[in-house]
Amino acid sequence: MASIDADRLASAFEAYSAVGRTENDGLHRLALSEADARIRDRFVADLEALDLAVRVDEVGNIFGRREGTDPDTAPVLIGSHLDSQPYGGRFDGQLGVLSALETLRAFDDDGVDHERPIEIVNWTNEEGSRFKPALMGSGAFTGQLDTDAVLETTDADGVSVAEALAEIGYDGDDPAKPPEPYHAALELHVEQGPKLEEAGRSVGIVEGVLGMAWLEVTVHGDADHAGPSPTHARRDALVAAADVVSAVRRLSNRAAADVVTTVGEFEVSPGSINVIPDTVRFTVDVRSYDDAVVGELVDHVEREVQNACAREGVAYDLEEIWRIPHTEFSSSVADTALDAAAAVGASHQPMVSGAGHDATYLNELTETAMLFVPSVDGKTHNEAEYTAWPDVVEGARVFAETVSRLADADD
Amino acid sequence: MASIDADRLASAFEAYSAVGRTENDGLHRLALSEADARIRDRFVADLEALDLAVRVDEVGNIFGRREGTDPDTAPVLIGSHLDSQPYGGRFDGQLGVLSALETLRAFDDDGVDHERPIEIVNWTNEEGSRFKPALMGSGAFTGQLDTDAVLETTDADGVSVAEALAEIGYDGDDPAKPPEPYHAALELHVEQGPKLEEAGRSVGIVEGVLGMAWLEVTVHGDADHAGPSPTHARRDALVAAADVVSAVRRLSNRAAADVVTTVGEFEVSPGSINVIPDTVRFTVDVRSYDDAVVGELVDHVEREVQNACAREGVAYDLEEIWRIPHTEFSSSVADTALDAAAAVGASHQPMVSGAGHDATYLNELTETAMLFVPSVDGKTHNEAEYTAWPDVVEGARVFAETVSRLADADD
Repeated sequence: MASIDADRLASAFEAYSAVGRTENDGLHRLALSEADARIRDRFVADLEALDLAVRVDEVGNIFGRREGTDPDTAPVLIGSHLDSQPYGGRFDGQLGVLSALETLRAFDDDGVDHERPIEIVNWTNEEGSRFKPALMGSGAFTGQLDTDAVLETTDADGVSVAEALAEIGYDGDDPAKPPEPYHAALELHVEQGPKLEEAGRSVGIVEGVLGMAWLEVTVHGDADHAGPSPTHARRDALVAAADVVSAVRRLSNRAAADVVTTVGEFEVSPGSINVIPDTVRFTVDVRSYDDAVVGELVDHVEREVQNACAREGVAYDLEEIWRIPHTEFSSSVADTALDAAAAVGASHQPMVSGAGHDATYLNELTETAMLFVPSVDGKTHNEAEYTAWPDVVEGARVFAETVSRLADADD
Repeated sequence: MASIDADRLASAFEAYSAVGRTENDGLHRLALSEADARIRDRFVADLEALDLAVRVDEVGNIFGRREGTDPDTAPVLIGSHLDSQPYGGRFDGQLGVLSALETLRAFDDDGVDHERPIEIVNWTNEEGSRFKPALMGSGAFTGQLDTDAVLETTDADGVSVAEALAEIGYDGDDPAKPPEPYHAALELHVEQGPKLEEAGRSVGIVEGVLGMAWLEVTVHGDADHAGPSPTHARRDALVAAADVVSAVRRLSNRAAADVVTTVGEFEVSPGSINVIPDTVRFTVDVRSYDDAVVGELVDHVEREVQNACAREGVAYDLEEIWRIPHTEFSSSVADTALDAAAAVGASHQPMVSGAGHDATYLNELTETAMLFVPSVDGKTHNEAEYTAWPDVVEGARVFAETVSRLADADD
């Protein structure tokens, strides 16, 4: 059993949280920003202090390699991301990197040598806040995103990923692809939902990720004056769009238990107090572990848009901008984690994730699973994001034990 | 009967429409902009060509005075506004100024001398697009707005009304108040709604303006991640606000025939595709000719907000930011206009206005009424705003005849 040092983990967490800390104890550390540069420097220094071989690839992913005792074995890949949402929380991503770092430190303390090499990684731009899409570093590394396209992607100011990487000195020499096949990958992350807290469990063993679809809808009405336009003559884009919002919420009530539906972007024009809105652009996010249900939900939403717009006499455009099937993680890695959790004595449960993670892409490359620790009140992507410290420590212990088992060549 | 010259009116309309004309034949002539300066210069030149005594007051209202034959009589005030909405139409405001100008030109042609002086006016910043509130010039002039506060009002770039007036040379010397009592005021305007067109009439005699209230509502939920947050745990500000939009629309169906309700501003935060909205700020505009109905509607909206927010478990703030009772215009001026319309032989009907106008403020000062001409499809505040030319001419003829009658000291 690896000897996780809770105080050392806490101290690292405090130190890392200081880089990009917000007034309200959150974290504002956008990908490839100056704060990201500083935390990368710190991370590299910590890897070097462990005598790890550090390499940086062309999209800025940072790897540290702890050699195994058997040079013929495939390595285990562990880690997460150090970038944050705008004014986000300290736990999202960072906790996964630091649990992996503490695991390697504990292995050093214990003088443990595993057969397999272990590589710790910080993925570039997981959040997708400054540069879109999200999961950029792991996407390029696993071949799910085109590396040239990634490097050419620009932020709102027209700065490209390539320029931003060069600016902070993380335009690495290694190609963004696996130098060799991996044995397995494991990522610890905060749940970002309330299920573990509601169940009173410390650790979730994540067996898969919901499938999802994103729709973009634009409703076109007429911008008439709010005073002289009688109701019968109106074609109010907001009235139609509001009907769709209500319908989208109802859809989440009728389907399977794990279905969630959300309208997140919603822009109303012209947005004047005495003018009937003529344009509303909004997005619909539908998710389910059952890919067929996602398809049904998309069809439902389209019919609801059609009906709401017909009722109001307005036109619309609807486009499905993204669809991704559900991810089924490696049962062997998940089983290893379940056994590890039992051995450690941590309260735990299997679960699925509502959100995609770097691990979703890694699952295309190698046997992959995730561990979740609870998010208090399910809060995430804001400064109030919090995980109780005993849960963090339990998570790190299960993580270290799972990595230890995965790094044994027999497993 | 004054001899309105339809060709001269058309020619003036074309010339004025060229100043601030948009690519799509609309008008972009924001208050106190360079385009507004140019049209003011043109207007002053046209007044001087008629030998009118021109004066400009401290908020930039421009007056031209045609003396009457009886120096002891109170003047008749006619006109409208030359500023436009952003990318607005050519008819809104401008048509009222040009009908008044054509009326005075026709009086000159006819060699008509009326007992009462007639003053033609261009009110500063009727639209309220660049500087808020709307009806600024007539508001200051009638004492409904504080002149110092008006002059200190700044636009989005921090430029004050006083600075903008000085910049274009229309910071006049006259105080913004009536130099003497008026006998009556009359404004011609486009209807900005579809009622005249639906009724097949050329001219509306406006006997009053709907009362109205404006509410501002902010809904406060939680910005959780759209994936991992189960529906039961959500507090989605947009779901609650959308319910209110539907309810506000339903309110317009149950009350009196002339009730209209509109949600015009509607801003959703954080506005990210995979984040549950935590804040929606929106406005509600309710109007009725019956002030008691406006009060009932406000109470209804508040209950709907309360219920929708309780259902979703979100908090809200609600503020009534403006309430104005209905305006009842002068029955004597309206009757004069009805008689004039009959004498001219124009198809006409009495009606009420859904929107406020400079005449609403003038009604506080003197006997006031308005004439409306049809808006095709009810369109206004956009480049497609249109009034068929025969209706324009009919409107100008009724306007001139009404002014002629009002300017007779006996009436």
